[in-house]
Amino acid sequence: MLPIALDAMGGDRAPDEIVAGGVQAAEQLGVDVLLVGLPEAVEGHGLPTLTCSEVIAMDDDPGQGVRRKKDSSLVRAAEAVRDGKASAMVSAGNTGATMGAALLRMGRLKGVHRPAIATPIPVPGTTPTILLDAGANAECAPEWLVQFARMGSVLATDRYGIDKPRVGLLSIGEEETKGNTLVKEAHALLRAADGIRFVGNVEGRDILTDDIDVVVTDGFTGNVALKTLEGGLKFIVGKVFEAMMSSDEAKEAAKVLLPALAPVADELDPDAHGGAMLLGVDGVCIISHGSSSARAVVNAVRVARDMVDKGLVERLRAVVVTPPA
Amino acid sequence: MLPIALDAMGGDRAPDEIVAGGVQAAEQLGVDVLLVGLPEAVEGHGLPTLTCSEVIAMDDDPGQGVRRKKDSSLVRAAEAVRDGKASAMVSAGNTGATMGAALLRMGRLKGVHRPAIATPIPVPGTTPTILLDAGANAECAPEWLVQFARMGSVLATDRYGIDKPRVGLLSIGEEETKGNTLVKEAHALLRAADGIRFVGNVEGRDILTDDIDVVVTDGFTGNVALKTLEGGLKFIVGKVFEAMMSSDEAKEAAKVLLPALAPVADELDPDAHGGAMLLGVDGVCIISHGSSSARAVVNAVRVARDMVDKGLVERLRAVVVTPPA
Repeated sequence: MLPIALDAMGGDRAPDEIVAGGVQAAEQLGVDVLLVGLPEAVEGHGLPTLTCSEVIAMDDDPGQGVRRKKDSSLVRAAEAVRDGKASAMVSAGNTGATMGAALLRMGRLKGVHRPAIATPIPVPGTTPTILLDAGANAECAPEWLVQFARMGSVLATDRYGIDKPRVGLLSIGEEETKGNTLVKEAHALLRAADGIRFVGNVEGRDILTDDIDVVVTDGFTGNVALKTLEGGLKFIVGKVFEAMMSSDEAKEAAKVLLPALAPVADELDPDAHGGAMLLGVDGVCIISHGSSSARAVVNAVRVARDMVDKGLVERLRAVVVTPPA
Repeated sequence: MLPIALDAMGGDRAPDEIVAGGVQAAEQLGVDVLLVGLPEAVEGHGLPTLTCSEVIAMDDDPGQGVRRKKDSSLVRAAEAVRDGKASAMVSAGNTGATMGAALLRMGRLKGVHRPAIATPIPVPGTTPTILLDAGANAECAPEWLVQFARMGSVLATDRYGIDKPRVGLLSIGEEETKGNTLVKEAHALLRAADGIRFVGNVEGRDILTDDIDVVVTDGFTGNVALKTLEGGLKFIVGKVFEAMMSSDEAKEAAKVLLPALAPVADELDPDAHGGAMLLGVDGVCIISHGSSSARAVVNAVRVARDMVDKGLVERLRAVVVTPPA
């Protein structure tokens, strides 16, 4: 397999933590990792490198960043995939710029309306629920959501081994008459579509359950839902932690409970899941969250390798060009 | 004060739990409660009654229910407010039908584009964040959101004593260039509006913080955010509870932690908050959640009384007709 291009400059903890993750991934997974970044960041770690002279910052305007910084690590990583020098790219950097670089350099798959960000939402005790679009397209047409359903289903199969993934449409009630115009139109199209196991409308409360595998929505709603969920979980975990630290007695009690709580906390930890993917571009593109640790990078590289192994992009190409009968 | 009309037939636990709540509210708050419902449900409890012959079920189509069941408790409760027989209405029944009954019988305030559901989201440690629209209007025009901001600000002041409520617009990034067309247009209008303390775009993760008092959004996004948050909190609370019950040792430890966790759980309990309100109709209308207990009814009646006392509807009338300079 060609190496996996790792944007060493992307992420709140770049480059040190990202490079450390790359080194660990190479060791632990036996995968070739191509470190892409400034020479001083990527050289001397015993891994192949692709050096560049620019960095797109986390707060750079994504469009301008990609257009103007042609020798940035993000753009170079995407080019490496395009040029057959890497099999996949991984970045924890500026999400908009990662999308832009992947789209401009790799290009979209033929037949894809718009690439979408597919975010796995961990559901302790079962496989994650894949939410897409989680933010690539603030406005969507109904037929795009049908394509998101196809692409998300392929990902659920390849990434989580789900045979016939159940697809729900995010709405504000189970009835097909509920929702906005986009949802009502998408509902009808999904209902009529071949090759999608559409189970109807779902609500926000269904995301964290075992009842659904793929949730499709526009990128605005998806991003709001994702961040609301993250905020809510962070809040309540913080409150539980506060209670556990509130007295010496509580601290002792917490020690007893931690073994039972730790697996849940670990499953909810985004670092354990290897990040979101941009589906619909001509290559595997993993978008890790900005605060990624070395561990998150290892898991992202693992997912990238697995998706290359499974031929995800070819399988996506097949469903977007000729939907299965 | 005129009595508060309580829809005795609305809610998963109606009529018994609702009537019990009405009786407790009358006792504890010294408020006149008018029980509206079928004779066998409302008579014999020592409270004034308004009897009817029909009930709109939780799963009835809201529009049909309100149009066809003219002698239903919901419609009669709204009429009581319209006719000056009650000062406010409270229902834990079918949300859509409650909105419909209030809108058709009370009418909307002059100048109101669309009434909105304002839901207080409890934030333990500080005042709740008011989210509107939480589901009345799946599709909104930008100027409606400006009016939601005005109405939500009045409610934050009257209900939670917040002097100059901070209003945020729910989006997918703080930058005003982020979001869908509705959000971008609403952002510009809110920025230019007098009399609103607009602090810019907020994200889902900001809802459960002390940084914001009122969050405006369309009813589709608001409802998705609300249900996603509810689902997430329920999920994690369930997992913590599971851990606490996982062994005898854990149960003992849980007893130590409960005193510190109980206040948080209590603040998050929707029964403690008195429910959502439909803002923009010509009367106080409290929409309690479907699973309301007697305690929830007491709190709903309390909020209804307080809002009547404060002259909420007149204050809303003033801001929607002539926005403050």
